[in-house]
Amino acid sequence: MHVQYRGRRCHFRTVDFDPARNAVVLIDQRLLPHRFRRIRIPDHRATAVAIRDMVVRGAGAIGATAAYGLAQGAREFAGDDLAAFREHLARVYETLAGARPTAVDPVNAMRQVLRAMETGATVAEQQRLALEAARRFADEDVAHCEAIGRHGAPLIREGVRVLTHCNAGWLAFVDVGSATAPLYTAWAEGRRFEVFCDETRPRCQGASLTAWELAQEGIPHQVIADNAAGHLMQRGEIDLVITGSDRVLGRTGEVANKIGTYTKAVLAARHGIPFYVAIPLSTIDWDLADGRSIPIEERSPEEVLSAWGAIEGGRGRRLRLGRVRIANPTSTARNPGFDVTPPELITGIITPAGIFRPEELWAHRAELGGPADG
Amino acid sequence: MHVQYRGRRCHFRTVDFDPARNAVVLIDQRLLPHRFRRIRIPDHRATAVAIRDMVVRGAGAIGATAAYGLAQGAREFAGDDLAAFREHLARVYETLAGARPTAVDPVNAMRQVLRAMETGATVAEQQRLALEAARRFADEDVAHCEAIGRHGAPLIREGVRVLTHCNAGWLAFVDVGSATAPLYTAWAEGRRFEVFCDETRPRCQGASLTAWELAQEGIPHQVIADNAAGHLMQRGEIDLVITGSDRVLGRTGEVANKIGTYTKAVLAARHGIPFYVAIPLSTIDWDLADGRSIPIEERSPEEVLSAWGAIEGGRGRRLRLGRVRIANPTSTARNPGFDVTPPELITGIITPAGIFRPEELWAHRAELGGPADG
Repeated sequence: MHVQYRGRRCHFRTVDFDPARNAVVLIDQRLLPHRFRRIRIPDHRATAVAIRDMVVRGAGAIGATAAYGLAQGAREFAGDDLAAFREHLARVYETLAGARPTAVDPVNAMRQVLRAMETGATVAEQQRLALEAARRFADEDVAHCEAIGRHGAPLIREGVRVLTHCNAGWLAFVDVGSATAPLYTAWAEGRRFEVFCDETRPRCQGASLTAWELAQEGIPHQVIADNAAGHLMQRGEIDLVITGSDRVLGRTGEVANKIGTYTKAVLAARHGIPFYVAIPLSTIDWDLADGRSIPIEERSPEEVLSAWGAIEGGRGRRLRLGRVRIANPTSTARNPGFDVTPPELITGIITPAGIFRPEELWAHRAELGGPADG
Repeated sequence: MHVQYRGRRCHFRTVDFDPARNAVVLIDQRLLPHRFRRIRIPDHRATAVAIRDMVVRGAGAIGATAAYGLAQGAREFAGDDLAAFREHLARVYETLAGARPTAVDPVNAMRQVLRAMETGATVAEQQRLALEAARRFADEDVAHCEAIGRHGAPLIREGVRVLTHCNAGWLAFVDVGSATAPLYTAWAEGRRFEVFCDETRPRCQGASLTAWELAQEGIPHQVIADNAAGHLMQRGEIDLVITGSDRVLGRTGEVANKIGTYTKAVLAARHGIPFYVAIPLSTIDWDLADGRSIPIEERSPEEVLSAWGAIEGGRGRRLRLGRVRIANPTSTARNPGFDVTPPELITGIITPAGIFRPEELWAHRAELGGPADG
């Protein structure tokens, strides 16, 4: 999507590749929304570190970064010894897979790249195939998000007021995003509307990343405390909710997403406000049969006890990022990272293959890339 | 209540008076929870500034501060000229009333003091009566909170897990608090339980003040993001909710309170979790007949766009308080300060006169200090 950069409107992807320098090119998300910086990652080890250190985050984005990282690593190999190349490639794979051990997207993405390399008879051919496959992975991520946008855009009617939670925007993918895709598509089609961004404590991805994205596109939006959505719904100021998801159970229609999503779904149901979840097909889990068995990561208490941002009132114009301790210094915190929303609170799941009632996913599993049998 | 102060467990009121120095004594709440400091306010003008600058906040606490401030101002007068004394007193009243022009508690409290002074024939007698009346006002505030505690404590059974929102604790009153009173009473009676403190963005009074209060009493508690309560309820980890209120409509049972209260009430109702509101009688508004006509203050966007606290990682041990900008710098925010919870979501209103169903307040208006007729 676009970034207002040095006075110009530029198009950037979250993850890109510079073949001349064999560099993965990332937007440094650790500095957003306070500073926009693209960085060229010179080798696959540094790419793994970038994944680990959250320079890049979001399922689609870290998948594409790992895919490019594997191609990058493959291209670092000099010579034509296929056996040595395979050994080298296995080390590159392990380095990248180990950067975020619990994330499934880097592994899936790299497997696609490895499969594509199989037809190559020489090192050079395999190196070429690797980069092609990584590019294809990134392009498909974009195409999926664009398809979500096409299916979801008709929901964004002129003048609607949309609530979002967390960031399922283009920064979490290669481009376009999932929850934001219908917004960007409707905006490009000329319809005008407003967005409320839940700030999404404790990490505040709504206030920082989603608000930043919308500001770059010029879409009117306001940040709200997570506490305020219920009041705004009560006063008739919200017409529609769209969120992303970390995992949708294909068998039950349950939706795991950033903590607080369930609360917004309960409020929306009470007020008769449509609640949509936008996802690429890779988000659907066809195995689990019960949302209660989704592991809910308990994250660091520090995220709740403090807040991160640009420290105000510093000397001069130098940007200083840091944390303030909000909470009583002798208190601790609970910090569940995700919650699970039951299907009866969800109006529809917006996918690249169309919009489905959550309970209908299983029946449509053939279209949605699900398993052949039950 | 108690404060762990210089290694000892001390009892302090939020608002007190030192007659020898004619000083109002306050806990400086601008420094909490990061530093505990009591300050002696030397004259009524400084007391007005302390009210204005939020050294003291909370309905009961600012009422008592204004009452003491009026007595303090009365005692600043030298001589026995009654007419000049009355003129002086009118100026003191205006100074204190102007400190927080929209707050009703300072005005009501000072009127009580003025009425008590009427029987004094001399300046000295009126000065004595003023201080007596201010003390009585403060003592009654404490007695009301203690009565809330007696009525509410049976709800706090052994082992319960209680959710609170914002701070309706002793720091908001002269002592004991409203929502916290049942907790402190049950704790003193020997029952053991746990509290979840909603952090209560944007001003985070739950994470800072309520957590600080509970820590001083040694009551086990954990801070949670406002987003997390729904998930914890869903997993069966919350048994009871108690909040305070800024205004309860005696005619309808509607409850205005800190933004986010409505959301927690909706969630509690969905999960069959009792939801109580604890208030002194002065919180009941017997006039308004419709919660939609309660004015909802729209506060500064800055509160949402940033967070306040102790800046971490500073040099040495010096405490530095300040703000970090969380949100995208070019975005704005909506910041409604309060919301209104309908009576059907509220299990009971805990008052100094007992616990009532919200719809029953009007029928019990005689006991609750309401108007004689409809």
